[in-house]
Amino acid sequence: MSDSVIRFSKDNNFSDVIEKGLMNNIARKAKDASRILSTASSAQKNNALSTIADNLLKHSDFLITENKKDLSDSREKGISGALIDRLEINPKRIASMTEGLKQVASLNDPVGEISHMWKRPNGLSVGKMRIPLGVVGIIYESRPNVTADAAGLCLKSGNSVILRGGSESIKSNRAIEKIIRESIEASGLPRDCVQVVPVTERKAILEMLKLEDFIDLIIPRGGEGLIRFVTENSRIPVLKHYKGVCHVYIDEFADLKKGLRIAVNSKVQRPGVCNAMETLLVNNKVAKEFLPDIHKELVKNGVEIMGCSNTCEILGDVKPASETDWYEEYLDLKLNIKVVKDLDEAISHIGKYGSMHTESIVTESYSNANYFLNRVESSAVMINASTRFNDGFELGLGAEIGISTSKIHAFGPMGVNELTSTKFIVLGDGQIKE
Amino acid sequence: MSDSVIRFSKDNNFSDVIEKGLMNNIARKAKDASRILSTASSAQKNNALSTIADNLLKHSDFLITENKKDLSDSREKGISGALIDRLEINPKRIASMTEGLKQVASLNDPVGEISHMWKRPNGLSVGKMRIPLGVVGIIYESRPNVTADAAGLCLKSGNSVILRGGSESIKSNRAIEKIIRESIEASGLPRDCVQVVPVTERKAILEMLKLEDFIDLIIPRGGEGLIRFVTENSRIPVLKHYKGVCHVYIDEFADLKKGLRIAVNSKVQRPGVCNAMETLLVNNKVAKEFLPDIHKELVKNGVEIMGCSNTCEILGDVKPASETDWYEEYLDLKLNIKVVKDLDEAISHIGKYGSMHTESIVTESYSNANYFLNRVESSAVMINASTRFNDGFELGLGAEIGISTSKIHAFGPMGVNELTSTKFIVLGDGQIKE
Repeated sequence: MSDSVIRFSKDNNFSDVIEKGLMNNIARKAKDASRILSTASSAQKNNALSTIADNLLKHSDFLITENKKDLSDSREKGISGALIDRLEINPKRIASMTEGLKQVASLNDPVGEISHMWKRPNGLSVGKMRIPLGVVGIIYESRPNVTADAAGLCLKSGNSVILRGGSESIKSNRAIEKIIRESIEASGLPRDCVQVVPVTERKAILEMLKLEDFIDLIIPRGGEGLIRFVTENSRIPVLKHYKGVCHVYIDEFADLKKGLRIAVNSKVQRPGVCNAMETLLVNNKVAKEFLPDIHKELVKNGVEIMGCSNTCEILGDVKPASETDWYEEYLDLKLNIKVVKDLDEAISHIGKYGSMHTESIVTESYSNANYFLNRVESSAVMINASTRFNDGFELGLGAEIGISTSKIHAFGPMGVNELTSTKFIVLGDGQIKE
Repeated sequence: MSDSVIRFSKDNNFSDVIEKGLMNNIARKAKDASRILSTASSAQKNNALSTIADNLLKHSDFLITENKKDLSDSREKGISGALIDRLEINPKRIASMTEGLKQVASLNDPVGEISHMWKRPNGLSVGKMRIPLGVVGIIYESRPNVTADAAGLCLKSGNSVILRGGSESIKSNRAIEKIIRESIEASGLPRDCVQVVPVTERKAILEMLKLEDFIDLIIPRGGEGLIRFVTENSRIPVLKHYKGVCHVYIDEFADLKKGLRIAVNSKVQRPGVCNAMETLLVNNKVAKEFLPDIHKELVKNGVEIMGCSNTCEILGDVKPASETDWYEEYLDLKLNIKVVKDLDEAISHIGKYGSMHTESIVTESYSNANYFLNRVESSAVMINASTRFNDGFELGLGAEIGISTSKIHAFGPMGVNELTSTKFIVLGDGQIKE
């Protein structure tokens, strides 16, 4: 563990350590470590990942003991329910962290990849080579598994990472950090490529967001408030993930059986996540046939429905949707339903109320599928598939560090490739510019 | 021309129009236009580009008349020399603008491109499709040709553009804008996809930088002061281009004839640009042989030399380089020379003093070339080639909207591809998540 950290836990108070340049020190060490990590071989990085996985498993008792301190501190503060559940580390969750690290080890190393080279008229060969970003800062809320997941993805892609988790999970995160850093060092790589910010004050985030000379990218993961706070205060580029207001559109040419299955799955398979459907759009021509069937299925699954006037008329006993409902990310067993007159109305509804996350059309019409695919401006646009497939694992990226809902640098789930950049490489034979 | 613009030029003063939401209005119209432009066909966009080129040529007299007003206003303000030269529009420069637009028309359309698709175990086909960013804001200094170049690149890549040029060139930019907008409209596309900010106050930039809901990317082009101002004040992602402190390293295994040619070309072919060499690094083992030869060539070309102590010893009459000289972007016939003991010292000098722009190694050693290529962290890393090749045209991108010296979104010259993002497309057959 670094000197500054030991000093802090002995005799300084939080603000003091921050004033004394704690964040600057962490970021500088991260940058130095990133220079070494950027040229580490795939074998070295994969070895470090496996060692971390083995050691997390081996030191399960230590992790669970430290986590129990966080859990009891949180209960004392009156935290309960879902938050406590997310905070808990148990053998199953440790197994899942180690499994994740092993999966990341098995991915292709993006660093050094050159997808193609081209020849210039003067004989120069030009290509683009993938390179790490450098130092990534991750600011997240209380799930301690993010600490291991994010460290693994950053290590694989050759980046140092600075992890700033929620205050409730500080002891759990520090315990995971300890095991990760010792494992990295045992693998011959610099331990400073993974650092957990050891203080829990918000001021530490503000300090972190100023360190543009050392940190290359900030990824906030959490509620909209956190993300806005980070975006407004950062001089470093931020990859944002705002809400997921996802839509399924049942086209007039839909196979209604597929539509039923896809719509129900998109809503109920796991309603509390960002790629769950929040609004169902149904073409007017099939509404009378489709709505009663889906209504029955949704009610059976405990879904509360808010409908447009047409939906209310067809279904009778559903609640009318208000204008603000269409913008809502319920993350719950609640669903808006709107009847639209055509594909264009569906697309403009999505453009107005959606959050550019995930939209799916159910149709057997080639032309309508193609029209939807090319016109909808979301990070994932699907044909005849559940919106629940928009995550890094399901799309085949292996694992994800987050989902970007803005188009700069990355759009949609971000895997190891999205934690890299490219540089031009130019192979000459003495060429000069005339 | 838009209503707000006409109203402004008749009776409002600058601040008033800004207060009344001028920038917000411009940005909103740009966003609306971008939705239409994003689905325009390549033929429509190319037709618009050719029409603009033809009309710029046809209305040369109008452009030159308006430009003369800027020139005389600037001379009255005491501006002279290089600045006046950059500001001037003449038949040759109009020809070069139209040539640029025609070249952009001939490039492949990046929008809609799907480079490959992969199959998931559940049968889903997944791919990434290129899409426009939306609205790009360009903030630049006094060269009016940027107005036409940037408009062309944004149009080709399906983006609306808001152009905020230097105050000295406002009449020239408005004249170019008028022709571009009329040509776009004549081609059946929305004229609001190209807008020049009609006011010259800095306050307009500040307003623009707040409009994150409408503008997707800001590209500042100009001096370091402008770029820092934009970065510090923007809530919108900024693609930065700081300085170019470029290096050539003459390795111990260099072909010294190639080295001489490449080093001289990198310095003198056009010293005032960002990809010109500012520091020459020479391996100690070849310094005594190489330095007198290059010295002679550089002196012949009028280059002033600042040397490290070894260089001064070998060459006798050169000025010693100070610590700050190594950071300097001279943009002039001035050059630092440093003798290094090996490849690692060359690479760490570049890491410490360089600006991640362009570096070239001259060597016949496969291992050293490879080592340099993989370890140097710059937007273009070259072997046996002049640093002057780091621009969009020379690298084969067709044309460039700028050069990014930070690694987020794009690194190095940015062509039409770098003005796009990608969305995931998912083609299913009724798949749901189990």
